[in-house]
Amino acid sequence: MTSQLTRENLVRRDRRDPLASCRELFELPDGLLYFDGNSLGPPPRAVHARLAEVTARQWGEDLIRSWNVHGWIDLPRRVAAKIAPLLGAQDDEIAVGDSTSVNLFKLLAAALPLRPGRRTVLSEDGQFPTDLYMAQGLGELLDGGLRQRLVPVGDLAAALDDDVAVVCTSHVQFKSGRLVDMAALTRAAHQAGALVLWDLSHSAGAMGVDLGGCGADLAVGCGYKFLNGGPGAPAFLYVARRHQEAARSPLQGWMGHADPFAFDLGYRPASGVGRFLCGTPPVLSLAALDAALDVFDGVDLEALRRKSLELGELLIELVLGGCGGFGVELLSPRDGALRGSQVSFLHPEGYAVVQALIDRGVVPDFREGGVMRFGLTPLYLRYVDVWDAAEVLRDVLATRAWDEPRYRQRKKVT
Amino acid sequence: MTSQLTRENLVRRDRRDPLASCRELFELPDGLLYFDGNSLGPPPRAVHARLAEVTARQWGEDLIRSWNVHGWIDLPRRVAAKIAPLLGAQDDEIAVGDSTSVNLFKLLAAALPLRPGRRTVLSEDGQFPTDLYMAQGLGELLDGGLRQRLVPVGDLAAALDDDVAVVCTSHVQFKSGRLVDMAALTRAAHQAGALVLWDLSHSAGAMGVDLGGCGADLAVGCGYKFLNGGPGAPAFLYVARRHQEAARSPLQGWMGHADPFAFDLGYRPASGVGRFLCGTPPVLSLAALDAALDVFDGVDLEALRRKSLELGELLIELVLGGCGGFGVELLSPRDGALRGSQVSFLHPEGYAVVQALIDRGVVPDFREGGVMRFGLTPLYLRYVDVWDAAEVLRDVLATRAWDEPRYRQRKKVT
Repeated sequence: MTSQLTRENLVRRDRRDPLASCRELFELPDGLLYFDGNSLGPPPRAVHARLAEVTARQWGEDLIRSWNVHGWIDLPRRVAAKIAPLLGAQDDEIAVGDSTSVNLFKLLAAALPLRPGRRTVLSEDGQFPTDLYMAQGLGELLDGGLRQRLVPVGDLAAALDDDVAVVCTSHVQFKSGRLVDMAALTRAAHQAGALVLWDLSHSAGAMGVDLGGCGADLAVGCGYKFLNGGPGAPAFLYVARRHQEAARSPLQGWMGHADPFAFDLGYRPASGVGRFLCGTPPVLSLAALDAALDVFDGVDLEALRRKSLELGELLIELVLGGCGGFGVELLSPRDGALRGSQVSFLHPEGYAVVQALIDRGVVPDFREGGVMRFGLTPLYLRYVDVWDAAEVLRDVLATRAWDEPRYRQRKKVT
Repeated sequence: MTSQLTRENLVRRDRRDPLASCRELFELPDGLLYFDGNSLGPPPRAVHARLAEVTARQWGEDLIRSWNVHGWIDLPRRVAAKIAPLLGAQDDEIAVGDSTSVNLFKLLAAALPLRPGRRTVLSEDGQFPTDLYMAQGLGELLDGGLRQRLVPVGDLAAALDDDVAVVCTSHVQFKSGRLVDMAALTRAAHQAGALVLWDLSHSAGAMGVDLGGCGADLAVGCGYKFLNGGPGAPAFLYVARRHQEAARSPLQGWMGHADPFAFDLGYRPASGVGRFLCGTPPVLSLAALDAALDVFDGVDLEALRRKSLELGELLIELVLGGCGGFGVELLSPRDGALRGSQVSFLHPEGYAVVQALIDRGVVPDFREGGVMRFGLTPLYLRYVDVWDAAEVLRDVLATRAWDEPRYRQRKKVT
């Protein structure tokens, strides 16, 4: 491939790209090279009209009647039915609402009683911190009923023992972009008598996930990264059918009641995954997510994954080839099969480098430890974007353009 | 007053109303008489422009940078500072996010360890059911560490004993509109060694609440009723300063961490009420709520309460006077001092009556047990609206217009 690697050839490759037309479904500022869809996906164009419709006509004109006439009450279910096929799940295995953190709490609490006598929640020390914190909070509440055990990245399977009730891990690690083999880890956990709770925040919408095919138990994930649902969008959770009747949500809100409008004094869980709903659905945010998910209509998830891997391969080749002499190292696995839809590089001045890039219209993000993350969203990123971004990076590094106080000074959110 | 009670006089009263101009801040369909602001407040006009700005310009153009440049990360705090003065709270005693149900769970779990050796959560059997369910869910999790005890409406103070850790009650009861004396119950609870957790869903924004003056401990409330934040808007919670350092949230998400972007492996709670934040803030919904709250700018909360009571008095007088012969009874307290900002009537065919009213452009709502609820929002309701609604109600009852199959057939959400 290296011999053909010119900008012109990449422009041609974009023309042949079967996903090229998806870019038109998004609103992207002219000239911006956006590699941060793994933090916040950009708005699909349809979101604006939908939000205007929901606020002006539904909320503004039909008011309270909209719960019936515009089906607000079923919106969580309709959104779930759009997310399910991206995850290899059945519609009735997904519930949508609350945040990823809150959903993780629900499923951890639900999982422990499914493995009586066991109390360990096993995670990697590279797990996204909020997942670890939620388990710690549940542990304090259960007062000895939950023991969190952290092992180095990659050591989960080897660490399984007969006290592990749940393995709680990311499908794609947020810093390195390392992809965990879902089928293999699920098999290993089941053999050891444990369940697995997946955090799909960095894989849902970036690649086809096969929860059903892998025999997965439980999962949560985020609506605002590769699902493009907007900042702080509602999250989702997955409970395999075989666990649904035994699994109880600790957050027993009225929307998870078998008959919410009977206003009984006692909670009776809805049948199925609906029992994991809790409070009143956040209609505005759900409507945005609902409209955003339509960009996946007719998208071939294998083509999506193929393009994601090609974009990653291209970025690695260009950066290691062009910037290797400037202190940049690859953090992500070199092998695409082990990588999600992001490529992370290390640089001792990663924070300042990222700020200098943003200033030049290339937007990755930074994570502690010198990590520069480039998220790759195949629906709107072009091959030529990767070329252009790599050029800017090379220039920033070669000229030490990052070495300015304004780039080194930390902002609140990095 | 009865001698002067004509429609013409009420039109004159609306002209003199110091709150009359507030109506212009809302979008209300022509001719609709909306008495359901206690279920879903209508959109303040400013919400549309704000949502368009946040989605198109902030999310669409500045993307991930908006967390800094548009201050998304501080949005929960900015919204809290707008809610605090409505509640007699300090800005740093309010946290905004999640649902009322989830916030209630956080505070109940935080409250129990503040009263060691006690395990009873005391509520009325007329409490809004989701509050009861959340306590039940926490009880199952704590496995004996929480005992829910329900007493008849009005019996809380008499039921206090030395096992009561927390009284969990509504400030205004959702069915009857009965207003609880916050200062008196707080005093009684404190004398008995208990805390009180208030659900302010039906009082916040409908009247000035004086959490600080009453020495209140904890509270939660809803953003989509009298705060007009939109369907399923983010909720709020209140923790009095004196409890903040000892109170721990069981839902330890990264936004409640002392340093969220340090990505530590262990949770350290933020100082103050910020520790009760959890997942990523729902920016779109928060922005809508933020814009909606501006309708309270410069509103005299005493004038608001005065008008609310006058609207209620008027409705009771007109309905009992005009419809008393048709099987309508008053459920709400007759004494305004004991009433929130709604008036509830009983009718054996209440469901059908409410449907017939809605069909004629008068929108109250129905709750099980024949309860017809008329929510009174002084910011946009006119005295003449009350007159007109009472006329329609009288007509529906006098002609038995409700007695049709289409009005009797139950919808999903009533």
